[in-house]
Amino acid sequence: MADKAEFDLIKEYFTPENWRKDVVLGVGDDCALLAPPTGQQLALTVDTLVAGIHFPVETSPADIAYKSIAVGLSDLAAMGAEPAWLTLALTLPDINSDWLQSFSKSFAKTSKDYDLQLIGGDTTQGPLAITVQAMGLLEPGLSMQRGNAKPGDLIYVTGSLGDAALGLKLLLSNTSVDQEILDLCLSKLNRPVPRINFARAAAKHCSCAIDISDGLAADLGHILDASQCSAEIYLDKLPVSRQLEKYYTNPDHGKLEVDWKLVLAGGDDYELCMTLPEEQSAALVSLAESMALSLTRIGRVGSTNGLQILDENRQPFILDKSGYEHFDNNG
Amino acid sequence: MADKAEFDLIKEYFTPENWRKDVVLGVGDDCALLAPPTGQQLALTVDTLVAGIHFPVETSPADIAYKSIAVGLSDLAAMGAEPAWLTLALTLPDINSDWLQSFSKSFAKTSKDYDLQLIGGDTTQGPLAITVQAMGLLEPGLSMQRGNAKPGDLIYVTGSLGDAALGLKLLLSNTSVDQEILDLCLSKLNRPVPRINFARAAAKHCSCAIDISDGLAADLGHILDASQCSAEIYLDKLPVSRQLEKYYTNPDHGKLEVDWKLVLAGGDDYELCMTLPEEQSAALVSLAESMALSLTRIGRVGSTNGLQILDENRQPFILDKSGYEHFDNNG
Repeated sequence: MADKAEFDLIKEYFTPENWRKDVVLGVGDDCALLAPPTGQQLALTVDTLVAGIHFPVETSPADIAYKSIAVGLSDLAAMGAEPAWLTLALTLPDINSDWLQSFSKSFAKTSKDYDLQLIGGDTTQGPLAITVQAMGLLEPGLSMQRGNAKPGDLIYVTGSLGDAALGLKLLLSNTSVDQEILDLCLSKLNRPVPRINFARAAAKHCSCAIDISDGLAADLGHILDASQCSAEIYLDKLPVSRQLEKYYTNPDHGKLEVDWKLVLAGGDDYELCMTLPEEQSAALVSLAESMALSLTRIGRVGSTNGLQILDENRQPFILDKSGYEHFDNNG
Repeated sequence: MADKAEFDLIKEYFTPENWRKDVVLGVGDDCALLAPPTGQQLALTVDTLVAGIHFPVETSPADIAYKSIAVGLSDLAAMGAEPAWLTLALTLPDINSDWLQSFSKSFAKTSKDYDLQLIGGDTTQGPLAITVQAMGLLEPGLSMQRGNAKPGDLIYVTGSLGDAALGLKLLLSNTSVDQEILDLCLSKLNRPVPRINFARAAAKHCSCAIDISDGLAADLGHILDASQCSAEIYLDKLPVSRQLEKYYTNPDHGKLEVDWKLVLAGGDDYELCMTLPEEQSAALVSLAESMALSLTRIGRVGSTNGLQILDENRQPFILDKSGYEHFDNNG
């Protein structure tokens, strides 16, 4: 095989300046060394994105780098954690220095923007895949967990749902649509904004959250399973963007109502679904307002089991697929 | 694609009992939560093993699982850290439940044996690859780092070198050899023993170590680069096993002396190379004796630069390849 030095990629492309005081030793030794602040808990999440499964193979290296970090940040947000450090395991089919430069530049910018310092990594040869482990810090007792929903809790969702899934559908089908629809949907697909700041502040009011990566129905289902509760949600309350609505109310696109299956199960939203008692909801709503973040109440937690989705006539809506099936499991 | 539940592999095969008190929340939420002990530093390492590159495709799932953890443990040992937690990102070509059962059983046993609790993971579809991030704990000031070698230091190596590389060579060439040679070499290839306990105690005497994964020449070279020193080592001091020597002194195997290139650059040894001042070496030697671990002095650090390898006549030995080139970089 080729000369070792040529493949010293993490050191060559990814060694960041050491700007975090809690990083004692960064990239370049057998291990990184960290001095975490006393009394804080650590939150950790690991996700692998595989080309052709988690993103179209044509996706730009800058977007792939952004998303590989955003996915981990979204998990940190769902716990209410403050981003701190990350590691990168990168599998590449070959050494393409243009690709690596774009990827590493976007990776460095995104991690710096969120105060996440890269502390270690590994590069190997194979089909393109990116594994990022993101680590964060939080105060004991202030984590939002899936198992904390209680009967009577209100259910809220940030942002809008279904845009990323519509973006993927538009990309794959090459449908011609208004530029503003395409722009929004591709931005939500390739550049989802993790709700870190909102989540950090929200954790003071709310103890139950999940990030929506597999679709609202599947991810709210994880909350219900972990909390042993049921829920009712309403189609006409689900937040959809003006652009998604515009797409689906154009007769050229085949139907005159929103594709609720895509909204509920398309996945890749990276918004938060949260539940909390009614008396705490005003604080959450005003927090979202103060951050100009859209926050929508979509239903209520109940005491039986299962997820009931009701249409505008309050009749059950049957979803024949509970999530976007990408052979993926985030532990 | 198939039903999501079918692919919930980390939860199905890998959810361990929670036996470590510092694990607040293990596998199953958006993040794992840890409460690390106050005042300790964290050591982290990430390694990807790819089938056909880092291990032969025929390797048993139990051996692959063992090795994927041992490689990370060896990095923790090289820093002097105590093992604590790990995450697993597993890429599988398909769902083979026999394979998964053997892999996960060996993974669970190995991690428990070293008190490393699995706290999270992700599974994706693709060519077989295993990324493990291993995390450990250490006292501030007691880490062994590559940059701490000083001119005059003695250089020591644990165990014996070259056995794993000979094992791989025997496997690939299907050479017929004595069973005892094959047994030792395959055991060193598939079941390297990370020098955790020795390293934890050695860190009190020694501040510079690296684990030998790419071959002694390359890895000692990393110490010299990081410490801006030189070194002289002697072929006739390098520790080789009785079995390796027996293989190479058998005229049927083509030569009558040890293949020093394989010993110096074959890689996959997972032994430790350490440097320390002469006055501290007696403590290290008696520590190794007390643990019945072979520890060999192989040379001395100097004040110029580069690695000088000398043969039995104290003439330079020229190594035309500095490491085992597996397109791999451990950051």
